[in-house]
Amino acid sequence: MTKPYVRLDKNDAAVLLVDHQTGLLSLVRDIDPDKFKNNVLALADCAKYFELPTILTTSFEQGPNGPLVPELKEMFPDSPYIARPGQINAWDNDDFVAAIKATGKKQLIVAGVVTEVCVAFPVLSALEEGFDVFVVTDASGTFNAMTRDAAWDRMSSAGAQLMTWFGLACELHRDWRNDVEGLGNLFSNHIPDYRNLINSYITFQPEQ
Amino acid sequence: MTKPYVRLDKNDAAVLLVDHQTGLLSLVRDIDPDKFKNNVLALADCAKYFELPTILTTSFEQGPNGPLVPELKEMFPDSPYIARPGQINAWDNDDFVAAIKATGKKQLIVAGVVTEVCVAFPVLSALEEGFDVFVVTDASGTFNAMTRDAAWDRMSSAGAQLMTWFGLACELHRDWRNDVEGLGNLFSNHIPDYRNLINSYITFQPEQ
Amino acid sequence: MTKPYVRLDKNDAAVLLVDHQTGLLSLVRDIDPDKFKNNVLALADCAKYFELPTILTTSFEQGPNGPLVPELKEMFPDSPYIARPGQINAWDNDDFVAAIKATGKKQLIVAGVVTEVCVAFPVLSALEEGFDVFVVTDASGTFNAMTRDAAWDRMSSAGAQLMTWFGLACELHRDWRNDVEGLGNLFSNHIPDYRNLINSYITFQPEQ
Amino acid sequence: MTKPYVRLDKNDAAVLLVDHQTGLLSLVRDIDPDKFKNNVLALADCAKYFELPTILTTSFEQGPNGPLVPELKEMFPDSPYIARPGQINAWDNDDFVAAIKATGKKQLIVAGVVTEVCVAFPVLSALEEGFDVFVVTDASGTFNAMTRDAAWDRMSSAGAQLMTWFGLACELHRDWRNDVEGLGNLFSNHIPDYRNLINSYITFQPEQ
Amino acid sequence: MTKPYVRLDKNDAAVLLVDHQTGLLSLVRDIDPDKFKNNVLALADCAKYFELPTILTTSFEQGPNGPLVPELKEMFPDSPYIARPGQINAWDNDDFVAAIKATGKKQLIVAGVVTEVCVAFPVLSALEEGFDVFVVTDASGTFNAMTRDAAWDRMSSAGAQLMTWFGLACELHRDWRNDVEGLGNLFSNHIPDYRNLINSYITFQPEQ
Amino acid sequence: MTKPYVRLDKNDAAVLLVDHQTGLLSLVRDIDPDKFKNNVLALADCAKYFELPTILTTSFEQGPNGPLVPELKEMFPDSPYIARPGQINAWDNDDFVAAIKATGKKQLIVAGVVTEVCVAFPVLSALEEGFDVFVVTDASGTFNAMTRDAAWDRMSSAGAQLMTWFGLACELHRDWRNDVEGLGNLFSNHIPDYRNLINSYITFQPEQ
Amino acid sequence: MTKPYVRLDKNDAAVLLVDHQTGLLSLVRDIDPDKFKNNVLALADCAKYFELPTILTTSFEQGPNGPLVPELKEMFPDSPYIARPGQINAWDNDDFVAAIKATGKKQLIVAGVVTEVCVAFPVLSALEEGFDVFVVTDASGTFNAMTRDAAWDRMSSAGAQLMTWFGLACELHRDWRNDVEGLGNLFSNHIPDYRNLINSYITFQPEQ
Amino acid sequence: MTKPYVRLDKNDAAVLLVDHQTGLLSLVRDIDPDKFKNNVLALADCAKYFELPTILTTSFEQGPNGPLVPELKEMFPDSPYIARPGQINAWDNDDFVAAIKATGKKQLIVAGVVTEVCVAFPVLSALEEGFDVFVVTDASGTFNAMTRDAAWDRMSSAGAQLMTWFGLACELHRDWRNDVEGLGNLFSNHIPDYRNLINSYITFQPEQ
Repeated sequence: MTKPYVRLDKNDAAVLLVDHQTGLLSLVRDIDPDKFKNNVLALADCAKYFELPTILTTSFEQGPNGPLVPELKEMFPDSPYIARPGQINAWDNDDFVAAIKATGKKQLIVAGVVTEVCVAFPVLSALEEGFDVFVVTDASGTFNAMTRDAAWDRMSSAGAQLMTWFGLACELHRDWRNDVEGLGNLFSNHIPDYRNLINSYITFQPEQ
Repeated sequence: MTKPYVRLDKNDAAVLLVDHQTGLLSLVRDIDPDKFKNNVLALADCAKYFELPTILTTSFEQGPNGPLVPELKEMFPDSPYIARPGQINAWDNDDFVAAIKATGKKQLIVAGVVTEVCVAFPVLSALEEGFDVFVVTDASGTFNAMTRDAAWDRMSSAGAQLMTWFGLACELHRDWRNDVEGLGNLFSNHIPDYRNLINSYITFQPEQ
Repeated sequence: MTKPYVRLDKNDAAVLLVDHQTGLLSLVRDIDPDKFKNNVLALADCAKYFELPTILTTSFEQGPNGPLVPELKEMFPDSPYIARPGQINAWDNDDFVAAIKATGKKQLIVAGVVTEVCVAFPVLSALEEGFDVFVVTDASGTFNAMTRDAAWDRMSSAGAQLMTWFGLACELHRDWRNDVEGLGNLFSNHIPDYRNLINSYITFQPEQ
Repeated sequence: MTKPYVRLDKNDAAVLLVDHQTGLLSLVRDIDPDKFKNNVLALADCAKYFELPTILTTSFEQGPNGPLVPELKEMFPDSPYIARPGQINAWDNDDFVAAIKATGKKQLIVAGVVTEVCVAFPVLSALEEGFDVFVVTDASGTFNAMTRDAAWDRMSSAGAQLMTWFGLACELHRDWRNDVEGLGNLFSNHIPDYRNLINSYITFQPEQ
Repeated sequence: MTKPYVRLDKNDAAVLLVDHQTGLLSLVRDIDPDKFKNNVLALADCAKYFELPTILTTSFEQGPNGPLVPELKEMFPDSPYIARPGQINAWDNDDFVAAIKATGKKQLIVAGVVTEVCVAFPVLSALEEGFDVFVVTDASGTFNAMTRDAAWDRMSSAGAQLMTWFGLACELHRDWRNDVEGLGNLFSNHIPDYRNLINSYITFQPEQ
Repeated sequence: MTKPYVRLDKNDAAVLLVDHQTGLLSLVRDIDPDKFKNNVLALADCAKYFELPTILTTSFEQGPNGPLVPELKEMFPDSPYIARPGQINAWDNDDFVAAIKATGKKQLIVAGVVTEVCVAFPVLSALEEGFDVFVVTDASGTFNAMTRDAAWDRMSSAGAQLMTWFGLACELHRDWRNDVEGLGNLFSNHIPDYRNLINSYITFQPEQ
Repeated sequence: MTKPYVRLDKNDAAVLLVDHQTGLLSLVRDIDPDKFKNNVLALADCAKYFELPTILTTSFEQGPNGPLVPELKEMFPDSPYIARPGQINAWDNDDFVAAIKATGKKQLIVAGVVTEVCVAFPVLSALEEGFDVFVVTDASGTFNAMTRDAAWDRMSSAGAQLMTWFGLACELHRDWRNDVEGLGNLFSNHIPDYRNLINSYITFQPEQ
Repeated sequence: MTKPYVRLDKNDAAVLLVDHQTGLLSLVRDIDPDKFKNNVLALADCAKYFELPTILTTSFEQGPNGPLVPELKEMFPDSPYIARPGQINAWDNDDFVAAIKATGKKQLIVAGVVTEVCVAFPVLSALEEGFDVFVVTDASGTFNAMTRDAAWDRMSSAGAQLMTWFGLACELHRDWRNDVEGLGNLFSNHIPDYRNLINSYITFQPEQ
């Protein structure tokens, strides 16, 4: 009767980055801009680090929504990039869905701007088609906390799992022994408190 | 086992505006008055823009609750307007339910003041009768956040979908190509940040 | 699959006031003391106004928990009053359950201090025995918001309906025409904003 | 030893609107955008209503800062408008200071974006030259509350008076009898709660 | 160079209650309505208890601002009551100032709605005339915290002392031995936590 | 359809303390450090007081995560202590699961740092294997409230019960008569408000 | 024209602990109880550590205010202890002032409950008599933040220096070389984050 | 009688970075770590960009306080670096003061961890010696907002000017024409909203 534990598997997961555009980002006010920028780039770094197929999509890049943030463009030069001609729900765009299906993955990791539209709509559509969906809540932003809370409720009630980028990284990695340095770097680059721990640690070591 | 994705369809949706009265509005303290006024008018503009049948109802206009806010009265001169003689749950008023059923719509979009009564009661009644119900949380207000949170839990647990006016507009519109200018105006009139984006954009264009 | 709409019925409801004791009240910090005192007395006034059977219980009155707040004692001189000898979950006290069952009511309205214990425990027990349970969240208090949020989740997940005293009064009353003045007084005594509306209204009337 | 009471005098006051530009507005996060837009327009309406000389200035309109918000441009078609070629402190621009001095006013009312720069710098310069300066804090915005608090401290310590647009309007008007309807309209247009009071009041009147 | 310690003296203090009107109270949002009502009545009780001359004034009672809250009217039937014909700053009304001067008191205790206008204006005027002024901040309310903070800064910079009703009562009383029961009752009636302490205490006493 | 009431039973419960390490604790920012330290030690005291089998585990003690906080080490010298060589989800460590199963308990009480990883992962795994799982939310900490809220939603949706240490203690104890002094001490040591009640009470007693 | 830098000197400072009583502590709501208890004990530890003369005073210990918290009594068995018979401002009690003057110190460190009365009144009196006064703001508590803010403004305007216990300890100690271990212990006992740093540090050391 | 406007002058200013050490940073909780890290690096970039003499100092690098954050070390390889042997107030260290005086600058820009000690102490000492002192509040951090507020009050009362890094950069730069690209880069690197504006702007340009 309760939601089963669907565990993220790096061999069965794809990442969807929806509408992280320079104009739309000015609408995000439920999370501080410094933190939000960091979270989005951390999620992108996870996608790279775990070599997850990643799909980018934007809405009306030529209009006020503005272009995809350049950092994401540069990080995923070879990823499918769907500039939607008008569909608000990215799932209504056949190329986008085709790109997802082409990955052959069953687990979809989704983040975007704004949460209740660009994230929630494809999340609900994907759930309806039987995908396991993981929302990266802290790499998704919207107008205010009230809007976010309503969107979370709608997505969670429909079966999505609400996560944040750090939990996502940990669930994908499974075991530190798979690569201590790589994961450590990821954390050090995006969690100032963790970076401080590492820097203190290095200093305190006898030979270092 | 989870809530299915019921997607708003502009051909199958009606809007219920419950008790947005000048006196009752002084009770609303879970949302700032400037923002709340904007959200209510934005929802009304959505109803007009998508030509959704809209039903107005009030409780005790002659008493301290005060009249319906004049802007709403002016926007919907031909809509059914049910001044309830005493029923607190609008769904207990036969004229109100008859007006809803006369629309032939299965999807009900509901907002009102105060959330846990004027919204929640008809929402729960409508769900019980098999309607799909969408609560416009940010065009609904109440005494404080604790009351709102409890009301959201009660409505969501009973099957309602919690939304905000912007998500509603986007889900109804489906595709920007249906009308770029119309939707753009709606957003520009009710989202200062979006208006700024548009104004910057226009300025930066070579021929504009 | 969703919670059905169980509607409060004044002919089928009883009120349980659990451990509103002078000492325990000093533990309540998730709600301001002025507001909390008002909410508890408003709930008590509702119980009186709707003539709902009301059951009082306390835990260790002779110890640091202190006596029941005197106002409640005075308002319900003839109500069952169970000073529990030690049971933390009031439902573990046979006299308490017997008093509830003696009312013959199926709907239980529960409030108390502290929320996650004195309220949640009997709520969960009552649900298990098939009662319909309504938690009056704003007449229940606890240490902090984190504790309250966890307690709400536990009770709601188990089937309880989360309400506040104002919604409760409205759902019990059903129709203003049953008694305009009585309900108006109840609101005027416990909602300063409503009292102001009434006082402005009276002043503005021609003959008053 | 304390600050003297310098009272705003509509015959001796000028308004400076500094850098309310469409791009810069996206930086404002210490106040909600709906409320901020309302406050800026309310201040502009005050300037018009009290017929105060008003001076507009912008920084780099052709760049990312974007154009002055169009509403302000339209409201003050004949006001001095200084598009500064580069000076960050508007007071460093001779045309700006000349325009101020040309008004012959001793009291300067200042608002702008962002508070600690576009407002604070000319405020401090004006104080240094002996003007009486009134900061319209709620029509000025910046990155976050910490920045605002520091900027307020700096300006207040230097002798500026911190106000908000409503207090400004009241201090300028002095007596309702000067024009009840005009001031009432100003308030009704920018304070939803006040508009509700007026609408309730009108309804409750016998002949209206 | 710092503010001297001017100590409240019950033989040299008068209370000014400015514009606590039923309509204007709906504008107060920087403090919860339950708490605000309590604070205003607590201040009024202090004025009665210490037999301080008290002066009431209102602005436009016949209009949307509404009548003085009835409780205050009833508590001070014989106090000077100045319904100002239009002056926004009560100090601009000669009758008001005359009533103050007729008390012969040098210390003025001021509270009202809204803080930055109805309180701040007469506070600044009174300071200018050499009175010692004590603002009862928690019996004064306004639109939001930003407005309040600016108003506090303006009043404090001009020499006013910022207090709350409890500190005021304590400074006026000086010594519990002057009347334990009277002060205890005042606190018990307006501070739920203190009432609980007293009720626990009474219960724990051997003979009670 | 709703979650059944699974009641904590001190004869059928074990406690899992996951990764309360000196380095990781610097990451916890959703709860104040003074309060968090108190909650963790209170939970540990509960485990001791109710003689619940307790299992300790850590991740990479030799690295930046740092050692288990010394207080916990000292309190449970004979408890199973699993220093995981790399598994992020403690449930992936066979020794950890074996230690749990060796207790023969069906109810697992879990707390740790950080909530969405070190707590949520084993919680989800344990639920999947049919355990009843109780999360001690206030003895678990993470980066911020957004992360915590998402983690709570994930765990609750999967069937976990969200609790806090005080509710846990009360549900395990069942009846004060089992040991008044012991439970009183536990509360006095970890709830300053309760300690104050007790100290007032003792003072007020005739013979004490 | 600005406040001079009066630097705390352990040879010229005395500590006044005013009314930290078990009953009065239930009134403190501007700071979390776990943190407040810690701060008060930290200040007491500072007084002991720096061997500062310390004076205790209480108001009506036999009444609802309750006894001095036992920990303080135990820590300062030989300190002057003035149970005031009724004076609200401790400075009105001759024994209290005599005890202070007997120390021969010119710098007074003051903390107490509640801030705007038990702290502010003697602070203002002491300033008037020419003492240098340091308020330990985080070891002083009151009803809410509004009250605290007003009290801070009154004390700071009168010349008091606002500090917290950690800054106090650092200013008194001057140089770590005076005693590394002692100060480290003080911090470790009252700052969980600092304790964690120390515990990590010890672990990371080669020989430890 | 008010503070004069001392304007930052890049030819007369030096920067003091005090105790930004990896261990001490874990104590900072009045500002989010992502934002704080950004602010500190932004201030460092300002120091480099404006070629201000910069002085680094640390306290007990070999102990739990940890090393200076490596980024700062790398950015200022040739700056005076004073590892204080024990003085808590950096101004008590002769080398530190000598390094400051060697710069010949009269304006000191100070930031550090924690605000009320490592910042406030040298700020107060520098003011006493006649320097003009500018506190970069958002590149300074401490335990909580209460501590910060008290520290700001102490420093501002003593004559310091409270600023944030963005205001500092603007006041130093004076005129965009001095170097548009350089300042734009500085802002783009540390203000995500500004970076978005620039990226939108570039995209919208005809030739780009």
